[in-house]
Amino acid sequence: MTFFPTTMHALVLTSYTGASALELQELPMPQPGPNEVLVKIAAAPINPSDLMFLQGLYGVHPELPHVAGFEGSGVVVAAGPGLYGHALIGRRVAATSFAGGTWADYVVCPVTGVVPLLPSVSLPQGAMLFVNPLTAYALVDIARKQGAAAMVQTAAASSLGRMIVRVCQRFKLPLINIVRREEQVAQLQALGATHILNSSTPDFDVQLKALCRELKATIAVDAVAGALTGRLLAVMPRDTRVYVYGALDLSAIQLNPGDLIFRNQQVNGFYLGTWVNQQNLAELLRAAVAVQRLMGRDFRSEVRAALPLTHHARALELYAGDMTGGKVLFMPRSEGEN
Amino acid sequence: MTFFPTTMHALVLTSYTGASALELQELPMPQPGPNEVLVKIAAAPINPSDLMFLQGLYGVHPELPHVAGFEGSGVVVAAGPGLYGHALIGRRVAATSFAGGTWADYVVCPVTGVVPLLPSVSLPQGAMLFVNPLTAYALVDIARKQGAAAMVQTAAASSLGRMIVRVCQRFKLPLINIVRREEQVAQLQALGATHILNSSTPDFDVQLKALCRELKATIAVDAVAGALTGRLLAVMPRDTRVYVYGALDLSAIQLNPGDLIFRNQQVNGFYLGTWVNQQNLAELLRAAVAVQRLMGRDFRSEVRAALPLTHHARALELYAGDMTGGKVLFMPRSEGEN
Repeated sequence: MTFFPTTMHALVLTSYTGASALELQELPMPQPGPNEVLVKIAAAPINPSDLMFLQGLYGVHPELPHVAGFEGSGVVVAAGPGLYGHALIGRRVAATSFAGGTWADYVVCPVTGVVPLLPSVSLPQGAMLFVNPLTAYALVDIARKQGAAAMVQTAAASSLGRMIVRVCQRFKLPLINIVRREEQVAQLQALGATHILNSSTPDFDVQLKALCRELKATIAVDAVAGALTGRLLAVMPRDTRVYVYGALDLSAIQLNPGDLIFRNQQVNGFYLGTWVNQQNLAELLRAAVAVQRLMGRDFRSEVRAALPLTHHARALELYAGDMTGGKVLFMPRSEGEN
Repeated sequence: MTFFPTTMHALVLTSYTGASALELQELPMPQPGPNEVLVKIAAAPINPSDLMFLQGLYGVHPELPHVAGFEGSGVVVAAGPGLYGHALIGRRVAATSFAGGTWADYVVCPVTGVVPLLPSVSLPQGAMLFVNPLTAYALVDIARKQGAAAMVQTAAASSLGRMIVRVCQRFKLPLINIVRREEQVAQLQALGATHILNSSTPDFDVQLKALCRELKATIAVDAVAGALTGRLLAVMPRDTRVYVYGALDLSAIQLNPGDLIFRNQQVNGFYLGTWVNQQNLAELLRAAVAVQRLMGRDFRSEVRAALPLTHHARALELYAGDMTGGKVLFMPRSEGEN
């Protein structure tokens, strides 16, 4: 048996009032239970969902106080009962805790929340495996498993949208990209995207209808919601399924009931935590390997800053000030700590 | 071979402007194609969906001129190529044509659009088998096939809602009935319904949440749509699926995206025409027999008037003036014709 410190440091949210309610606290070392592992965190990013979580605007609301952070990377240093968890001891892994907890020196994750990193993937890059790249992979996987001939995506110029472009290219799945500003058309063309529509143009609905019919696109992944979800369904073919995975438009989803009733359309939500729980371990590991192969090339995220947990106020300020200017990571053991 | 007249009479809609745009016309006798049968109509009801269809407000919009009427009963008098169709010749059947066409002396239907009537079911009652009773059966069938422990329905006091109460009683599926007026509570209690909530009361959402949790109700069938669909999802459990089959509230369906995303909820449409096409013939016949057994008891619809096609203006006026006061049937060969 290795002996660990009996306490660790973690960024604890004390009220759902934003970054100022985070406190660096000394907590008892968490203990892995059956089929759980203890990960010594090397890096953990700040994502848009974290900023929403801190303000109580995210769909996950654990009782406070609670450690923040949904993903990270590190080394498995202990495991509770269970063969697979023990086999992971000493391995570099990407880790996720959908209940939060990675902005800390250590985190306990279920074995399905950690995936071994390929040698080609660094710990800082591996820290960003789950939230964006695996979501992109999962959304395309859903389309492929349903046998869709083509897919539509909204918010196509976002980090996640650009990853979806790459995954579709890899699997040769035709993709119709919807953006909201003209300059985003060129950004996607530079990635090799071929079908790009701007929802701000007056003939958008007519163009989308024609293109969906031509490519037989009967699945859409939607990060915008609001009125756009219903606009998609109104022009997409019979039997279309929409998976809403974000709500950039903060208003309610609006749908014409006739489209659902007479054209057999369907609206679903997508949340990575649910998807991960629906996969068996073999499927999840296959997905994780596929995503890491893409990470080596197309999924690389630019890292702007890596700061210790003590500098949390500065880290969050830096990220919130420019969310598209590169990732900010917490690295508990980076210089500046202690 | 039997020889038929070469022409027939039918009520033809000439523009989507309501009952006044119906004309009694002499048309060529329709010819059944492969796996189609020719039904000599005995009776065909006027339903709420017909009134919407005449005004262009229904989800089915064939090119005009087009014969109206979605369901009826009669005798199969001819069949196109196909063994099963030929076996039906001479049988009394309930018939549906989702493209319209039963307000006529004869109609051609696919073999999946006719079901033999049990001896206990009269032709006038059999004429009303598809639109309401089979929809009630199909909605409960969906819940049972998904293994739902209990179901929620809106507009529970409607004709269809009351049939759903009966089908759930037969299959011992606990049902939560939502009505909008206090007097409807007593109407449903008289049917033996046990869980009845009035959505106009201030504690409706709290009560529905508690009851859904207690009964583990994760499926809802909804004839109202609008804001109510989202209210259902907000209080119903994780993984809930709603099937919208009507839109009494004429506004758009409104949903909170967070419920779909983080609580894995799903919104579907239900249309009997789609459901019938998804069943194989054996399943459809089993459903039709089950529905007819219920018709003998609980599903009997009161018939207020039976009129020939020539009296179409009077028939539609009578029905539209009081849609809950008993059914109005077209009976092409009833007294008054010729």
